[in-house]
Amino acid sequence: MSADQPVTVEVGLGDRAYDILIGPGLLARAGADISRRLPGTRAAVVTDENVAAAHLDTLRAGLERGSIQPAIITMPPGEKTKSFAHLEEVVDGVLAAKLERGDVVIAFGGGVIGDLTGFAAGIVRRGMNFVQIPTSLLAQVDSSVGGKTGINSPRGKNLVGVFHQPKLVLADTGVLDTLPIREFRAGYAELAKYGLIDRPDFFAWLEANWEKVFSGGEERAEAIAEACRAKADVVARDEFETGDRALLNLGHTFGHALEAATQYDGARLVHGEGVAIGMALAHRFSSRLNLASPDDAARVEAHLRDVGLPWRMADIPGDLPDADALLGFITQDKKVSRGALTFILTRGIGQSFIAKDVPASEVLSFLKDNHPASRKAG
Amino acid sequence: MSADQPVTVEVGLGDRAYDILIGPGLLARAGADISRRLPGTRAAVVTDENVAAAHLDTLRAGLERGSIQPAIITMPPGEKTKSFAHLEEVVDGVLAAKLERGDVVIAFGGGVIGDLTGFAAGIVRRGMNFVQIPTSLLAQVDSSVGGKTGINSPRGKNLVGVFHQPKLVLADTGVLDTLPIREFRAGYAELAKYGLIDRPDFFAWLEANWEKVFSGGEERAEAIAEACRAKADVVARDEFETGDRALLNLGHTFGHALEAATQYDGARLVHGEGVAIGMALAHRFSSRLNLASPDDAARVEAHLRDVGLPWRMADIPGDLPDADALLGFITQDKKVSRGALTFILTRGIGQSFIAKDVPASEVLSFLKDNHPASRKAG
Repeated sequence: MSADQPVTVEVGLGDRAYDILIGPGLLARAGADISRRLPGTRAAVVTDENVAAAHLDTLRAGLERGSIQPAIITMPPGEKTKSFAHLEEVVDGVLAAKLERGDVVIAFGGGVIGDLTGFAAGIVRRGMNFVQIPTSLLAQVDSSVGGKTGINSPRGKNLVGVFHQPKLVLADTGVLDTLPIREFRAGYAELAKYGLIDRPDFFAWLEANWEKVFSGGEERAEAIAEACRAKADVVARDEFETGDRALLNLGHTFGHALEAATQYDGARLVHGEGVAIGMALAHRFSSRLNLASPDDAARVEAHLRDVGLPWRMADIPGDLPDADALLGFITQDKKVSRGALTFILTRGIGQSFIAKDVPASEVLSFLKDNHPASRKAG
Repeated sequence: MSADQPVTVEVGLGDRAYDILIGPGLLARAGADISRRLPGTRAAVVTDENVAAAHLDTLRAGLERGSIQPAIITMPPGEKTKSFAHLEEVVDGVLAAKLERGDVVIAFGGGVIGDLTGFAAGIVRRGMNFVQIPTSLLAQVDSSVGGKTGINSPRGKNLVGVFHQPKLVLADTGVLDTLPIREFRAGYAELAKYGLIDRPDFFAWLEANWEKVFSGGEERAEAIAEACRAKADVVARDEFETGDRALLNLGHTFGHALEAATQYDGARLVHGEGVAIGMALAHRFSSRLNLASPDDAARVEAHLRDVGLPWRMADIPGDLPDADALLGFITQDKKVSRGALTFILTRGIGQSFIAKDVPASEVLSFLKDNHPASRKAG
């Protein structure tokens, strides 16, 4: 693998198909890759202060080589940027740059920047061209595929947005070397998720090779590519999330509830960590319902622990709301039909499925038994 | 024509096809018509204070007959409601009502409510079901077909939005009896536009029958249906406005500039009036460019004058910015390529076309010569 030969994953969505390029050195050649697909385009780059400080000069030089001199729109870092106020700011910045529908809005940052920017690109002039340059591992494996964009509402996460597919994704694996280890781990949780959904061999490969994924090199790009392929397979089957795509929510129901319960405070819990704990809980809960072996739950917990991820509620610093309140966050997020919830459960590693009839009472008692406070209270 | 047998216009957009029902008495049977298409749905109705005062009780009773008890979200009337702040308010109201993706958001009002509500329906949970119950003539002929939704930006009108098709449109022609005559006329301008675009026989029919359209009865419903059919034909050819659909902008380039120039102040100029003046200007400008006969421009002006619509800039109360400033509003709205603008021009009644190479200098001198101030200054 070299900068000249990134791995290419094609996301097959008919007339909305696009390529994901994965490998080191992609920022430096971004202008050429974009201009080849969108000749003569003008551009705005939306980024955050941290990414701008670390990488914007490199990207600017790379775009310049394709004769693209972008307007730059810089947001504060953090989940709170996924708000109506910041959406309006990005929209205004794109309009101020006088870009047309055929011009391109580039998201340059992590998942927050990708979701916010994709949403803005989807609504300015009712839909502009969109290119993603994800700079976190989480964004490279998660936001690269699927076309979901959005912001949070005070009533819940990602409740407002559009489906808007990018024209191109550039996943520069070299950029990940500058990520804080905690962020890298959080992204790794989402990457491992694809093994747990339906690729048991990939999960086993990760158990054997995770240290090389962390240290960089070919294994890193290959792991990202495999996760993107896995997600692209699911999304191609169900672009607008009316069925199978719900499998991608493995770990997310518990995870979102924990994120809401910690007020989206990244100091306590970032999204990927919520997903890690959520995946472990989904396996443990499946075992409790006699759907899966407790050995599989233990294997998931052990791998998350090995790589340094939180895997249980007790790993979240600070106090959590009680189990009833956590269930409240889950039901706000979900369709509740006669007291039954839809969850992604599993029959074992790589055997997840959509369960539409999970009794809320079972979830509540599971949450109570696994709540950190339960060890003190009884 | 009776309440039992509305005219039905089918908008053929593949798996997004839907019906427009047109006729008197549709509010009273709204619940049945909606439930037949969306069984078991829950609903939120978005409306404005004026429409709510006049018609909400009737609609509520009509929905109740279909066992629909909607949440009600009431906005202030007027173009200024098409803002980010009100969008956020509607989104929050829909989420507060705990509606799911399969539930329905109903727009009950004029074009402002339709555009704002459709946008909200398009982004809450990345797209909910949407039903339109337009209560102005303008909204019945314009917003009923096309799926365009959106809000205004301080940088221009309708610059932010999505394409989101309704599942059903109920155009109750009886409701129009309570419209102020000025609003009815403004909608009539948009209706007459379809004759001017490509249906010369329809324009001639309107010249002969406009008084019956204004007074109600079968001609009113038939005129609305014909306008919807005309628009549906264009939209089916070009759903996402990459080509022919631009014809629908006849009169809108000048019209939008005049709306912007009057700060969207409805006391001075409402949208349909801007379109009326814009259509007259487009014909007069086409004549000046030797594309169309001056007789056709005079015929358009005469018909607009007959029905009581403004047809020239001098009909707008108060001072207008000068011609240079008006051109500035046009170029903000349009793609400017080497000093050339895209305009909808015409070769005569019902023979409009997309002109991509209109010199900005020609537009400017035309605006100068037709500016009310020019009579004093020059």
